[in-house]
Amino acid sequence: MAELQRYAAVVEYNGACFHGWQRQKHHDEPSVQAALEAAISQVANHPVDIVCAGRTDAGVHATRQVIHFDTSARRSDYGWLMGVNTNLPAGVALQWVGAVDNEFHARFRAQARRYRYLINNAPAKQALQHDQLTWWRYPLDEQRMHDAAQLLLGEHDFSAFRAKDCQAKSPIKTMRHIQVKRWGNIVMLELEASAFLYHMVRNIVGVLLPIGEGHKPVEWMTEVLQTRDRKQAGITAPGEGLYFVGVHYPEQYQAIPCQPYGPVLLEPVLNR
Amino acid sequence: MAELQRYAAVVEYNGACFHGWQRQKHHDEPSVQAALEAAISQVANHPVDIVCAGRTDAGVHATRQVIHFDTSARRSDYGWLMGVNTNLPAGVALQWVGAVDNEFHARFRAQARRYRYLINNAPAKQALQHDQLTWWRYPLDEQRMHDAAQLLLGEHDFSAFRAKDCQAKSPIKTMRHIQVKRWGNIVMLELEASAFLYHMVRNIVGVLLPIGEGHKPVEWMTEVLQTRDRKQAGITAPGEGLYFVGVHYPEQYQAIPCQPYGPVLLEPVLNR
Repeated sequence: MAELQRYAAVVEYNGACFHGWQRQKHHDEPSVQAALEAAISQVANHPVDIVCAGRTDAGVHATRQVIHFDTSARRSDYGWLMGVNTNLPAGVALQWVGAVDNEFHARFRAQARRYRYLINNAPAKQALQHDQLTWWRYPLDEQRMHDAAQLLLGEHDFSAFRAKDCQAKSPIKTMRHIQVKRWGNIVMLELEASAFLYHMVRNIVGVLLPIGEGHKPVEWMTEVLQTRDRKQAGITAPGEGLYFVGVHYPEQYQAIPCQPYGPVLLEPVLNR
Repeated sequence: MAELQRYAAVVEYNGACFHGWQRQKHHDEPSVQAALEAAISQVANHPVDIVCAGRTDAGVHATRQVIHFDTSARRSDYGWLMGVNTNLPAGVALQWVGAVDNEFHARFRAQARRYRYLINNAPAKQALQHDQLTWWRYPLDEQRMHDAAQLLLGEHDFSAFRAKDCQAKSPIKTMRHIQVKRWGNIVMLELEASAFLYHMVRNIVGVLLPIGEGHKPVEWMTEVLQTRDRKQAGITAPGEGLYFVGVHYPEQYQAIPCQPYGPVLLEPVLNR
């Protein structure tokens, strides 16, 4: 049998097309992982398992999810990219494929993950991107939300934002970057942490919304954080506004294009 | 019976969720018109017919389609907006509703319609907005496309861009505005004309693509136009990148918010 080569790939997907990242016991519920493993196995001509940088929940999107897989098949990078994409259903596509050394691991070598959460803050709900934005009809003060978000910077016990069935070993994570911005109707929360607990971003948004509406003071964020009690926080905001947009790896893996990106239509304003 | 009041409404929809605008003979094929008529009739409590500014084909989106309808029901504008949206399926939503005089007609009072066509010009196909952008993998020169597009300005016989089963009385239309722009991967064609023939925008894009790739000279646009022969033009570009984005009405109807808009994620860069 030929020697195994490890490959990394960058994956974009629309969360509305799948029941989350993870392969389901019941195959009638499509998952991103199952779709990718089937398509890669088809091109490799042998069964392939994949590992991702950060699993996402049902409805959550990704512009730059990173995976790795091992294969004995020999194809060009372009051959993998085009071959796998041809075998994938609508709503998921590789954006890049490249060979990496065996020390690379999409999950364990990741030093930080970045998410964006997009809110359409308008009186009437959107239809076109109905499953790609969270609709919030009441006016939000993005400056208050930004100020509250800053209170999460640094290392904290994030238990107050942790869903019941979270399997992480420790609730202590480091928030490296967090900001709230507005362009017209769109309010965007962007955040980067060493790792995220289950539903952590959506639960943070659930606290930012009443602060943005003015129903709660900015300092409520610190109060909630310090309780370490999920019951003290707000709603779990919908998954449809959430995007996994990038991963930090050690410098030797800089060839992997996984810096924060997208969604593509917003990219021109993000990069201006 | 109470007197009839005419209402105008602005509608956004995702064309991927419907088999085009027009009500189908077979009710198992959902249409935007049928969805809107059912929801408005529900709120009005009597059957309501609607008229739109410009019918769109399967897969084609709208951010600012305009409709009108007559009703004996009395509701506040906000009541119509919220009530109708509650009764609509995902993928279509009213953005505005308001009373208008009986002289208003969504189709016959429209002086011009505006469309945008969005291309994701990148090596790998997008997944997130898989049904909201046309993917074109070969590099496009947007300046050449813009120069060719200018050759369509003014009044012309657009028969060369007219689909076989077009029902318009005359192929002579006036192109009031046309431009091609790029932001990063996104190439956008925006155009406004008195009216459009069936598949006219998609057939214009079919000529712009080989010009953008450099396979055809800029002047090919004029050659094609002058033949008045559909067989001389290029492909019919996919409907998924096409958006109906605005309508011009006489000044007395300026309360209707139907100026060019969206898609929402691109709006911040369009308005910068």
